[in-house]
Amino acid sequence: MQMSDAVTACALIIGNEILSGRTPDANLNHLALTLGGWGIQLREARVIPDVEAEIVAAVSTCRRRFNYVFTTGGIGPTHDDITAACIAKAFGVPLVVSPEIAERIRRPPSPPEGLEARMRMAQIPEGAVLVDNATGGPQGFRMDNVIVMAGIPVVMRAMLTTLEGQLDSGPVIQSRSVTAYLGESRIAKGLGEIQGRYPDIDLGSYPFFHDGRYGASLVMRGADVGRLERMLDEVCQVIIDAGEKPHRGETS
Amino acid sequence: MQMSDAVTACALIIGNEILSGRTPDANLNHLALTLGGWGIQLREARVIPDVEAEIVAAVSTCRRRFNYVFTTGGIGPTHDDITAACIAKAFGVPLVVSPEIAERIRRPPSPPEGLEARMRMAQIPEGAVLVDNATGGPQGFRMDNVIVMAGIPVVMRAMLTTLEGQLDSGPVIQSRSVTAYLGESRIAKGLGEIQGRYPDIDLGSYPFFHDGRYGASLVMRGADVGRLERMLDEVCQVIIDAGEKPHRGETS
Repeated sequence: MQMSDAVTACALIIGNEILSGRTPDANLNHLALTLGGWGIQLREARVIPDVEAEIVAAVSTCRRRFNYVFTTGGIGPTHDDITAACIAKAFGVPLVVSPEIAERIRRPPSPPEGLEARMRMAQIPEGAVLVDNATGGPQGFRMDNVIVMAGIPVVMRAMLTTLEGQLDSGPVIQSRSVTAYLGESRIAKGLGEIQGRYPDIDLGSYPFFHDGRYGASLVMRGADVGRLERMLDEVCQVIIDAGEKPHRGETS
Repeated sequence: MQMSDAVTACALIIGNEILSGRTPDANLNHLALTLGGWGIQLREARVIPDVEAEIVAAVSTCRRRFNYVFTTGGIGPTHDDITAACIAKAFGVPLVVSPEIAERIRRPPSPPEGLEARMRMAQIPEGAVLVDNATGGPQGFRMDNVIVMAGIPVVMRAMLTTLEGQLDSGPVIQSRSVTAYLGESRIAKGLGEIQGRYPDIDLGSYPFFHDGRYGASLVMRGADVGRLERMLDEVCQVIIDAGEKPHRGETS
C-alpha cells in the first residue's frame, strides 16, 4: 500500500509460554484491531523468548523501522520478568525507580515478604513515562516510541485503552468485502488486473471451505472510500462475469 | 536454556489479514505444540505482510538462524499469493514448474477458465520438493530448511502431519507445573534462587486472576526429567514456606 502518511507499528510478544505452545497468544488480534481503529497500521509482529539478547535486538531493530513498537509480557515481579531491563539496555539508559510506580506499590496493605520483589516493578528505564494500569498489578511504561504492556490480556487491554488519543495517527484504513461461492482460480486473472489498477488498495483473496461449499472472500483495504467503492464494483463484476453471484459485505 | 543439541525452528506467518486483525491467527499454537512433540523447539515467530521485500528479508535472516523455518500463507492461485516467488528469490534460484504438482492440478475435471491461475501453484523454487496436501488445493513444498505451507488451518495441519518423522529432531522438552493461590511476588525471591541453580531448566511464573482468586502457575521446562522433578519439589517447598498449598500439575 502506498501511504507516505501512514503511521506504523510493530508488536513484540515476549514470552516463552507462547513459543512452547502452553499459552495461545490472546493479544495480537485485539492490538491489531484497536490500533487500526486509531489510524495506526500494524505492519509486523514477532513472538520472541524471555532472553535478554533476543529482546534487546528486536526492540533495537523494530523501533527504528516503525513509528511505534508495542510489547506485551515480562513486566511482573519474578526473575523471568526482564522486559524493563531489556528496554533500558536497548536505549542505553539505566533503570531507575519511578517514584509514581513505587508509591502505587507501597500504597495497598500487603504482606511484607513480597515487597522487595514488587518494588522490582517500579524500575523503569530512565526517561520512561507511566502507562497507567487501573486494574492494579504491574504498571506499563512508554520509552520514546516503545510502549511496554503486560501480557495478561485483561491488563494489556486496560493499558491500551489509556493510550487512546495519545498517539500519532494516520488515515484509518477502511475495508470492503464480497464473498463468492467459487474457486478463487476462476477469478484470479480478473482480480490481478484490478489490483494492478488500484495500487493504493490492498486486495486480498481468502479461500474457504465450509457448510459443504468452496468460496472466496475478497477483501479490499485502503483509506480512500470512493476508490474502495469503485474497486468493489469491479470485483463484483468479475464474479458476475464468472457466472456467480457476489454477496457484498459477507466474509468467511 | 543451554542445549547445544537442540533443534530449533522459526515460524513465518505471512498474511495482511492477520496484521489487519480481520483474521486471528489459528496456526501458531498448533505448530508450536506439534513441533515441540517432535523434539523441535519453536524459538521465534513473525507475522509479516504480503510484501515481497519483507518476505525475502525474513526468510533470508531466519533460515540462517534456525534449523528450520515454517511458513504459512500465500501459496494459492491469486495475485496476492507470492510466497513461492519470494522463497525462490531468497535462495537465488528460479521458479520452475513441478511436474508432480502440475499433474495433480490437471487431474480433476474443472472449468478451463481457472486452469492458467491454478497452474501458478505448480511453480516452485528450483530444487524444492513436494510437501503433500491430501486435502486437495495447493501443495506445500520444502526448499532446503524452509517448509512452505498453506494458511488455511485445516490444510496447514494436513501438510504438517506428512512431515512427522521426516525432520531432524533433538530432545523433547518435558514440563512440570504447579499452581499456588498467592501473589507471585511472595515467592519471587525463592523462585529466582531456584532458577539460578537450574540454568538448564526454564522456570516461568504466570500470574492469573479468575474465579475471584489471584494465583500463579509455575511452569518448568527442560529435557532432564530427573532434574525437573527435583526442581518441582523445590518450587513446591517455596510455596509451602510462604504458607500456601502447592497444587501439582495444575496450571491456569
